[in-house]
Amino acid sequence: MQYPEIFQEMIDCFKRLPGIGTKSAERMAYHVLNMDEEYVQQFSNTLARFQKEIHFCKICGHICEGDYCTICLDEQRDQSMICVVESPKDVYAMEKVKEYHGLYHVLNGTISIMDGKMMEDLNIQSLFERIQEQTKEIIIATNPTREGETTALYLARLLSKYPVVVSRIANGLPIGSNIDYADELTLLRSLEGRQKI
Amino acid sequence: MQYPEIFQEMIDCFKRLPGIGTKSAERMAYHVLNMDEEYVQQFSNTLARFQKEIHFCKICGHICEGDYCTICLDEQRDQSMICVVESPKDVYAMEKVKEYHGLYHVLNGTISIMDGKMMEDLNIQSLFERIQEQTKEIIIATNPTREGETTALYLARLLSKYPVVVSRIANGLPIGSNIDYADELTLLRSLEGRQKI
Repeated sequence: MQYPEIFQEMIDCFKRLPGIGTKSAERMAYHVLNMDEEYVQQFSNTLARFQKEIHFCKICGHICEGDYCTICLDEQRDQSMICVVESPKDVYAMEKVKEYHGLYHVLNGTISIMDGKMMEDLNIQSLFERIQEQTKEIIIATNPTREGETTALYLARLLSKYPVVVSRIANGLPIGSNIDYADELTLLRSLEGRQKI
Repeated sequence: MQYPEIFQEMIDCFKRLPGIGTKSAERMAYHVLNMDEEYVQQFSNTLARFQKEIHFCKICGHICEGDYCTICLDEQRDQSMICVVESPKDVYAMEKVKEYHGLYHVLNGTISIMDGKMMEDLNIQSLFERIQEQTKEIIIATNPTREGETTALYLARLLSKYPVVVSRIANGLPIGSNIDYADELTLLRSLEGRQKI
């Protein structure tokens, strides 16, 4: 027995969201069926406008509403540092720390041979163009995954031509964790990165 | 630091779906941002059309595209039995068994004092109106939860006025389970419902 066509379409739409299987998608479709009509129409409108109204900052590639993001427009921020991250998510994560006051550069991905993503598919050329006299340090804050590390190494090599300090965020044990539960690589990096106290 | 307005709206929309918290909603919003424009527009259209194009069968209350569902229209089905279920989901579950060939009646909920849902909020009156000479048995297949049991008992009482057999689906141990993991109530029901072999 099949679902009505539009019901099946709705399920298929939800199934394309990350982490949503058939069962969850069905549950969502039933839920939407019983929701306020007003909310469902708003959901539909938001989706229709979403991609059109989200822009990427012409300087750093972060998501924004206009041409430039609020961080790039903020002259109070430390113009001598650029923190390179994989995605806009990471900008929000870094901003939560409240200790970094420099600029950002969003690569919008990583080098990934599996996904056929190469250096030229990333927002990198604009990074080189941003490097000015006032730029002192570039912090590479890609994820400590295989793809993130590859991207970091490659980027560091390309940046070695420029008169800037290139640094990488530290690896080690997360605060509140246990040494006996840590994996070997994390522990190795934690030892290698040890500092005098 | 705040998300662009439309981005926050998108997150809020996803958060109203069942089982979706802030983190998942953020993940979905980023995912949608990078999706094919065509798919996102289709998603938006489907949502806009969804509630308008899904109808409820005028006989049994099951979801359908026209006025009547395919089950009620199917004259091959056994017209002497009506299986009462809570929601359209349950119709699809019962149909998977392939052993029941009667009709259905979808209550669209249960009596729930917590949610302020009473008998009159359910699709019950139309059930009584459906009972004809040819109706021999009404199987109450609400869930074996507190709300489902309450609804079943109440419904059975109301149906006692009619010249039909009223039955309830059996409780007991699910196939493939272990007795020592079963809860007391399930085991009790399993004992009470024992049958000669």
